[in-house]
Amino acid sequence: MIIDKLIEKIKETGNPTVVGLDPRLNYIPEFITKKYFAKYGNTPKAVAKAMYKFNKHIIDAICDIVPAVKPQIAMYERYGIEGLKAYEKTCRYAKKKGLIVIGDIKRSDIASTAEAYSDGHIGRVDINGEVYESFCQDFITLNPYLGSDSITPFLKDCLEYEKGLFVLAKTSNPNSGEIQDLLVDGTPIYEKVGALIEKWGESTRGKYGFSSVGAVVGATHPEQAKKLREVMPHTFFLVPGYGAQGGKAEDLAVCFNSDGLGAIVNSSRGIIAAHLKDEYKSCFENEVDFALAARQACIDMKNDLRRCI
Amino acid sequence: MIIDKLIEKIKETGNPTVVGLDPRLNYIPEFITKKYFAKYGNTPKAVAKAMYKFNKHIIDAICDIVPAVKPQIAMYERYGIEGLKAYEKTCRYAKKKGLIVIGDIKRSDIASTAEAYSDGHIGRVDINGEVYESFCQDFITLNPYLGSDSITPFLKDCLEYEKGLFVLAKTSNPNSGEIQDLLVDGTPIYEKVGALIEKWGESTRGKYGFSSVGAVVGATHPEQAKKLREVMPHTFFLVPGYGAQGGKAEDLAVCFNSDGLGAIVNSSRGIIAAHLKDEYKSCFENEVDFALAARQACIDMKNDLRRCI
Repeated sequence: MIIDKLIEKIKETGNPTVVGLDPRLNYIPEFITKKYFAKYGNTPKAVAKAMYKFNKHIIDAICDIVPAVKPQIAMYERYGIEGLKAYEKTCRYAKKKGLIVIGDIKRSDIASTAEAYSDGHIGRVDINGEVYESFCQDFITLNPYLGSDSITPFLKDCLEYEKGLFVLAKTSNPNSGEIQDLLVDGTPIYEKVGALIEKWGESTRGKYGFSSVGAVVGATHPEQAKKLREVMPHTFFLVPGYGAQGGKAEDLAVCFNSDGLGAIVNSSRGIIAAHLKDEYKSCFENEVDFALAARQACIDMKNDLRRCI
Repeated sequence: MIIDKLIEKIKETGNPTVVGLDPRLNYIPEFITKKYFAKYGNTPKAVAKAMYKFNKHIIDAICDIVPAVKPQIAMYERYGIEGLKAYEKTCRYAKKKGLIVIGDIKRSDIASTAEAYSDGHIGRVDINGEVYESFCQDFITLNPYLGSDSITPFLKDCLEYEKGLFVLAKTSNPNSGEIQDLLVDGTPIYEKVGALIEKWGESTRGKYGFSSVGAVVGATHPEQAKKLREVMPHTFFLVPGYGAQGGKAEDLAVCFNSDGLGAIVNSSRGIIAAHLKDEYKSCFENEVDFALAARQACIDMKNDLRRCI
C-alpha cells in the first residue's frame, strides 16, 4: 500500500512536511528565466521550461529531508499544454529522486468519466497492447461532491498500481464552511464526508492501520480537525493551510495521533519562495544556490511541527 | 454576456442540444485510427490525433444545427499531454466553426489557485506584455464544494472576456444524493448550492434575464430539477443525463420555462457514437460519412425535446 510507503518516508526523514510545488513566475530567479526568455521569447514554453528548472532546483535541495511533494496542477494548467508538460516532468523527476508525489488535481465526475481521470492520473492506458502511464503521481486529490460513484472508480487503480487518494473533507479557505459546515441533524457535512472517506478506504488499509484513501483537512480549522481525527481513525490527513494561509503548528497538532503519525502538512510558498524572504537571504551566497533557502525552510518547518506534535 | 450568445444560438437553431465531445477509441471509425496507428505506432499521440480528427468530422456535421459542444476534458487527460493537445485543438476548431464551447472540467480550489485555473481556461496569461489564451472555452464547469471564494475568482474573467460558468448543483449520477440531497433544516444541499449560484451570477445577467453563471442540473432527477427551476429564476441549466444515462425528454421538460428557454441538454455517446447503432446505419453509405449519423441524432434529439418543452 502506498500509504505505508508514505509513512515510512515520514519516519525516515522525521518530517511530516510536504512541499507544495506551486511555482509562480515571480518566484523564479532571474538566472533561470533570463535563459529561457532569451531562447524561446515571451512564450508559455519559456515559462514552462523555467518552472520545471526551478522545481528541479527545489527538488534537488529537499529530496533527502522531506517525504513528499505536492504539485498543484492549476499553476501549470494556467500555461496550457506547455505548462502541463512541466507538470508531468516535475512529477517524474520528483519520483526519480525518491519523493512521494501527491498530484493536487481535485478532480470530480460521474463514474465513466472518473475512470478516464483514474486511467490518466494513477492508472494506465492500453493502446493495442502497449501500456502507458500518462501522468505519474502516487496520490491525487479528489472532490467528493458527486458521492461514492465518483470516488470508487479510482480504487481499482489504487489497489492494482499501489496508488492513493486524498479526498476533500474540510478545506482551508475562508468560505469553506459555506457548504462544508452546514448541519444535517446536528452533524456538519464535512463529518458526513469524513465518514464516507473512512468507508471508501476500507479495502486499502496498510500495515500501520491507515488506508490509502486519505482526507484533506485544513490547518485553519483546529476544532473541526480534532473532531475529524476522532471519527476517521484509519484515515491519513493531508493538511493544507500552514504558514501563508494562517495555520499554525499549534493548531494542526490535533491532526496527529500520540505516536506522531496521522498527517502530513503542506507548505507551498513558505518553502519554495523562501529565498525571497529576508530571513532566508543568509542561506545562500549566489543566486544559483537559492534553493538552499527552501531546504532551510523545510528544516525550520520540521522543527516547528515537532515542537507541537 | 456569453449567456446571451448561447441563447441566441439556441433560438437560431431551434435546438437546445449540446453535443458532448467525449471520444473513446472504440467510437472512432477504422479509416481514421488505421492511418494514425500506421504513422505513429500504438501511442498516445496516434490516439490523440485520431480523437481530434474524429471530433472534426462530428463538428463539421453538426455545427449548423446545434448551438454548442461540451468536450469532457477527462477523456483527453486520460492520454496525457498528447490527449490534452487534442482537447485544446478541438475547442479552437469548434469555436472557429461558430459553436459555443462548454469545457467540462469541473475544477475547484481555493481562491489563489482558482485564479490560475481561470487564467488558463477562460482568461489570459500575460508574459512580459505578451498575452496568451491557453485553453479556449466559452464556458467551463466548476464544483462548488469549497464555497464562494472558489467561484468568485472566475467572475472577473467572465466579465472581462465574455465567458461563463456552469456550477454543479444536482448531478446526474446514481449516488449524487449522498451529499447533495442531505437536508439542512429541511432544505437539501443542492438547493442551498442553487441559491448560492443565483447569487454568484448576479453581476453577469444578460438581456434575456439569465446570468452567465449557470447550474448543472441532472436530467435523471425531475422532481429536484423542478424545484431548482423555481428557486433559480435567473440561472440557465446545463442538463446532463439525457439518453444513455436514462434521462427522458418528459423528465427534463421541467428545466425549461414556458417560452422554451432556460436550459441546454447534453448528449454525448447518443450523438457521437450514433454511427455504431443499427437505427442510424442507413444515414451513411461509406464509413467516411459516419458523422451523418451524429447529424441525424441531433435532429432526432431536437424533435424529442421539442415534443415536451
